This record gives sequence, structure tokens and C-alpha cells, in this order.
Amino acid sequence: MSKSLIVQKYGGTSLGTLERIECVADRIVKLRKTGVDIVVVVSAMAGETDKLLKMARSLSKNPARREIDMLLSSGERISSALLTLALQSRGIPALSMTGRQIGLQTDSTHTRARIKSIDAQRARKMLKENHVIVVAGFQGINEEGDVTTLGRGGSDTSAVALAVALGARQCEICTDVDGVYTADPRLVPQARRLDVVSYDEMLEMASLGAKVLQIRCVEFAHKYKMPLLVKSSFKERDKGTLICEEDPKMEQPVVSGIMCDKNQAKITLKEVPDQPGIAANIFEPLASASISVDMIIQNVSEQGHTDLSFTLEREELNEAMVIMKKVAKKIHATHVSSDAKIAKLSIVGAGMRSHAGVAAQIFKTLSAHKINILMISTSEIKVSCIIEQKNSKLAVTALHDIFKLENKPVKKNAKNKTAKKMSAV
Amino acid sequence: MSKSLIVQKYGGTSLGTLERIECVADRIVKLRKTGVDIVVVVSAMAGETDKLLKMARSLSKNPARREIDMLLSSGERISSALLTLALQSRGIPALSMTGRQIGLQTDSTHTRARIKSIDAQRARKMLKENHVIVVAGFQGINEEGDVTTLGRGGSDTSAVALAVALGARQCEICTDVDGVYTADPRLVPQARRLDVVSYDEMLEMASLGAKVLQIRCVEFAHKYKMPLLVKSSFKERDKGTLICEEDPKMEQPVVSGIMCDKNQAKITLKEVPDQPGIAANIFEPLASASISVDMIIQNVSEQGHTDLSFTLEREELNEAMVIMKKVAKKIHATHVSSDAKIAKLSIVGAGMRSHAGVAAQIFKTLSAHKINILMISTSEIKVSCIIEQKNSKLAVTALHDIFKLENKPVKKNAKNKTAKKMSAV
Repeated sequence: MSKSLIVQKYGGTSLGTLERIECVADRIVKLRKTGVDIVVVVSAMAGETDKLLKMARSLSKNPARREIDMLLSSGERISSALLTLALQSRGIPALSMTGRQIGLQTDSTHTRARIKSIDAQRARKMLKENHVIVVAGFQGINEEGDVTTLGRGGSDTSAVALAVALGARQCEICTDVDGVYTADPRLVPQARRLDVVSYDEMLEMASLGAKVLQIRCVEFAHKYKMPLLVKSSFKERDKGTLICEEDPKMEQPVVSGIMCDKNQAKITLKEVPDQPGIAANIFEPLASASISVDMIIQNVSEQGHTDLSFTLEREELNEAMVIMKKVAKKIHATHVSSDAKIAKLSIVGAGMRSHAGVAAQIFKTLSAHKINILMISTSEIKVSCIIEQKNSKLAVTALHDIFKLENKPVKKNAKNKTAKKMSAV
Repeated sequence: MSKSLIVQKYGGTSLGTLERIECVADRIVKLRKTGVDIVVVVSAMAGETDKLLKMARSLSKNPARREIDMLLSSGERISSALLTLALQSRGIPALSMTGRQIGLQTDSTHTRARIKSIDAQRARKMLKENHVIVVAGFQGINEEGDVTTLGRGGSDTSAVALAVALGARQCEICTDVDGVYTADPRLVPQARRLDVVSYDEMLEMASLGAKVLQIRCVEFAHKYKMPLLVKSSFKERDKGTLICEEDPKMEQPVVSGIMCDKNQAKITLKEVPDQPGIAANIFEPLASASISVDMIIQNVSEQGHTDLSFTLEREELNEAMVIMKKVAKKIHATHVSSDAKIAKLSIVGAGMRSHAGVAAQIFKTLSAHKINILMISTSEIKVSCIIEQKNSKLAVTALHDIFKLENKPVKKNAKNKTAKKMSAV
């Protein structure tokens, strides 16, 4: 068998300056000394993608997604070449590879393409020849040979997909946070890092806008049982959070995390004629434009008319509004409006299943702080509320407090140990 | 037959800001209204390539050329996507294409690859579908699918090669100068723009470091008789300089242009044992590193030893010095030194063939201005001297003056017309 392989992904902040690129190179040199094969997946240097997007938007109101992909994919190429140079100058045989060169084939949904396959033949050959491979994350090519990108968090997805394709031991997501927290530590200082999170819980958190990992990346890891370690690019000794199969020894806390996604927007259609097929008329055009709708609320019908609101990612608001204005005309809705100043507050916990009254406790807490709830959506293990963006911090802090998330849950086996000790006394 | 096709290349300065990209887009819209098909070849936005190179050099003293190509090629991708977006927002169906997508296959000499072939099938299809194609210049891919770049002026070469492959009517090089001048107008204010230059003369000028066009691009155009128009990206009404087959009606001036190439460096090997095979020992390693040597001077041998100097492009100095230090050890030369503060002054004129004493006049003029000549090299229609860089401006101005280059040469047919008129009087 060949050496054990680790895939490490470094995010944009970790590669944001030349000094940071040098630090990452130093870390990889150390890791290599432990005798493992290494594939590094890189994001664009921090700020680069935003800079390019801003330029694109100043030139075109609705920039073509194919061109956005051509534009943005350059960012990862740059950082992959730079990190490769830093490794080479440390005497490490290293090689940069683009999405195409790593054989990452996607569908043609530009700016959020899905991975279809990875032909890692060349990567395997290069690893055998003792190279560290530095892969431009976030990108692939479609059947026509056009460059595609994988959407937000795409580099994480690239990393997990490569880890699976190459049979890595572990996929490490090195980023500017040192793990998965009970809440965003920038919002809630007393937030606590979780040592281990199950794929299932992480999936919920990711789907609810936890910035640490994107849902696709976790889904991918879950599907192929690839252990995912989220850790800091800066604090080398930090253990980070391991995302893996559920550990039956883990105590399930009622609430394990609170997330607040500010990257949300709401569109409302007023006085929509309440007829069968209307919902399809509204949501089909969005689906064909690959725009994901999150929550949907329809008011009780009044005189054959109803108001309909839905939420979506803020960056898709402009495109969705263009579509909705056409749709509104077609279905004779009187008015279309949007609100980009909202946030989605979500409370997740596998233990919710067995504890009644969690939702009630949430609503009570928000109400006590005079925070208005605009929309509600619940599932077995989560409660989500749309609130005004300005209330985000207050809401998260209050709920973190109520559910006592700053305290570490006691492990079952730890409990048992104590029990034994006590009985021995 | 399909519509007539024009290939336009825009340099980095022409695309240096978003405003300039908008201007270029406006120009292309106007050109398109004349009913021609258009392929645009773009360079990286001004400053981008230097910025990337600087980063690479700060990370690695001798950056691997393969990685440099990966790094630099991103610049043209960015500008091609941005210009495409600007065209699309003007209602023009446009499409960006990379070197790979345009089918530009090269050899594997990274950072100065040579074009092997162009498979323009997809470009032809896109033109047929009425698209303006915006090609990332300067780049291609090799057999392994690795990105290569064509070296300095590579985008011009891309443009000419594409013009030839697609059977364009003309290839226009739109740049920050408005044509080919008798001398660099920044050095010599009275320098004059030439309306027409023959391929042969332009070849000489390009090979002597005239910045307007690189020799490979002119060679390519010459070989396939592709008319090349050099014109300003900014002054839309300017005619520019046409480079084409020699016009027998053109008067051949004794001197048509003076160039000064400051991008030169000199390497000197001291006390080289004067034995057969020594020159090969010195220059073969440079050749295998694809480093072009320009002038070579070997002193008269003294006691079996000789000094040997040669010039090369400054950017290859570091790499060449590394090689030369090894060579010096091997052949027992006592010392290797380099000088990067030199310039190559060249005087070109097809009329030199029939005029004696041009070289003498040059030397006399330089001497009168106390300008020391370090090396000399002459051919049928040019004289080149290596001088100290600080004397560049003085030398060019003095020679421009002596040869009266500010005056337009009288055309033969114009002369005849005057003659006829006079005889009619």
C-alpha cells in the first residue's frame, strides 16, 4: 500500500498575504516530515474574489455566469501557484494543478456547478513521484471544456471530493476559525467549541448557514464517511472539531448550536390570485434559474387573493427580482417587494426530539427581548425564525444564555467513570 | 463566404482600468456596426502581470517556470472575462475563451513557449453564431495540458496566429502608442510616426528592442502575409502604422529608426582558458535553458587566456548567472561578473546598403557626446552599440538629429507628380 494521504484545504484568509502563504508552506513542510502524502486545496487569497466580483458588477448588472466563472477561477490559480512556489523554495517537490488538471468534471450550472466525477490519474502519478500537489479549489470544467465554479464553499467541496477520490485518511479544513462553535464567537463571546460533531448535526448546522462548512461538503463527507477535521490555520496546536459518524457515547444536548445567517433576503408578492398552479408559476422559473428558495409563507386567502413571501440567499435577490417581476405580470399579482435586511436564526439540537417545549422556550425568549418573528419554520431537530437583521446579535446571545450552551455537556462514559469512583468511595 | 473578420488585440494599458475596458467595449461595438466579425485578443490589465511576478519572486528566488505560467495566465483570463461582460452589457453576444479553449497548442518551454498549432474549430462555430470572441492572449497549453505562456509580447503573437488561423482580413494591434516611430517619442519629442513600414524593417526594429511589437509576432505576420496595423487604443481616428509587404514606391531613407533597448544585461567571464570547445561549454548550457544570447565579444588571447563578454535580456540575467558560475568552475575561468546598467542602441535603415559611412557617422556622433561604446555589432542594414544606460537619451537624441529623422521622406510618386507639374509650368 502507498503512504497514508491527507488532504488539507486552506481558505482565503489563511492565504490572504504572502506572509500567510509562507506560514502555510511551513506547516505543510512539518506535516510532510511525519511521512504522509499531501494534497493541498486552496481558495483564492482573501478579498480577491470580492474584488473580481465587484469589477464584474460594475461592468454588467446581470453578469453572465459563464464569465463570472472564468473570472473567479483565476483567484485559486494564483494562490495555488504562489503556494507551490513557496513549497518549492523550501525544497519540497510541489506542483500546482487547476480543477481541469485534477480531472474535476462538473455539470454546466455555472457559478454553482455540481461535481460529476474526478479523474485523479495524474494526481496519483504525481503523488507517487513524491510531489505535494497544490490544487486550485472551487473549480472544474464541464463537458464543453468551459470553466465552472462550485459556488460558495466550493473549495471545501473540492477538498472532500479529492480526499474521497484519492482515498485519503482524513480531510482537514484549515480556516480562520478553530472549529465548530455553539454560536458564532464574534456574536457571542461565551460560545464554546465542540470537540466532535456528528455528520448529521453538522449537516443541519451547515444547511442553516453556519459559515464553517457548506452543506455540500458535509454531505459529500457523510456519504463517503470521510472524516472531516475543521481547524485553525493559525493556531497550529489547536485540535479543532472533528466531524464524523455519531458516537453513541456522546450525550445529546437539547440544543447544540445556534446559527444566524444574515445572507438572506425575502421577496413578497402581494395580492396573488389564489388559483391552482399559481405556486408552480412562481417557483418553477426560479428553479430553472437554479435559484434555491428556502422558507415559503402563504397567507390565508382573502377574496380569492393571497400574499406570498419566500426567502432566498441574498446574492440571488437581484436575479430573482427580475424573474419575479415578469412572473407577477403574468399571474396578475399587484406588487413585488423585497427585503434584504433580514436574518435567519436557527436553533439546532439532536436532543430536541426527546424534549418538548424547545420552540415555545425560543419564542418566549425572543418575545421577552421584543424581537419580532417574521417567519417560522421547524423540523424535528431545529427551529428557524426570520427576524430583522438588526436583532441578530441580541437574539443569538439571549438564546445561547437560556440554553446554557457555554457549559460543556458531560460525556456518558465520563459520567459512568464518576459513578464508579463514587461507588468505590 | 462568411463575413470579413478582423482580429484586434488590446494591450494591458488599454485595459488598465474598468473605464478603459468600457472604452474598448464601445470601440468594438462601433467596429461591429461596420458588419465585420471580430475576435478580440486581450493582455492582462496593466500592472497585473508585474504584481503577480513580484509576489512570485518574493516567495521564491528562482521560481519554477511552470508555476509562473500558471500564475501569469490568470491575468489575461480576468481581462477577457471583464471585457466580455462589458460587451454583453452593451447587447453584444460575446464569449471569453482561454488559450486552451481557442485551441492554442504550444511546446513545453514554459514562460516562452512557441505555438505549435491552433485548432480554431470552436472559435469558428462561435463566430458563425454571431459572437464576438474575447480571447485571453499570451497563453496556450502544452501536450500534458499544462498552461504555457508565450513570453513578452505573447498576446500580439496570439493575435496574429489567430488572425492567420481564422483567415482574418487584418490584425490590429491596439496599444498605448499610436504607431511605429523613428525613435521612442518619450526619449525624442521630435520623433515622427511612420505611416507604413515593411515587414523587413519592422523585423529589424522588433529584433532590436522596439517595444511596439515583438519579433515573433512580426515574423508570424510576415510568413503568412497578414497585414498588421499598429494603432492607438485611445485616439480612435488615428491611422496608426501599417506593417505590410514592401512598397516599391517607398523611398528608402538611409536611417528609418533608432531604438534603444534598456532591457539588456552583460555577463563577462575573465581569464577563460583559450581552448577549442570552450565557447560551446559556455553557450550550450544557456541554450538548453532557452536563454538567448545576443552580442558576444572575445578579447585577443593573452598567455592562453581570454576574456569573454556577452549580452542577454536582463530578466534572464539571474538564471544565466547561476549557470555561468557553474560553467566558470568547470572551465577554470577566474571570475564571472555582470552588468545590468547597459543599453543597446540600434540604428536601422534599409537605405544603409547603398550608403557608405553610416557607421562612421554614428561613432563620430557618440564620441562627440563623450558616450563610450562597450560593444559593437553591425549587419547590412543596422548598427548596434552597447552603451551605458545613463547615456541612452543623449545618444538617441543626438543620432535622431544627425540623421534628420524628424523630416518625412518624400515618396517617389509624390516626387514624380511634382516633376510633372513643374514640367507643365
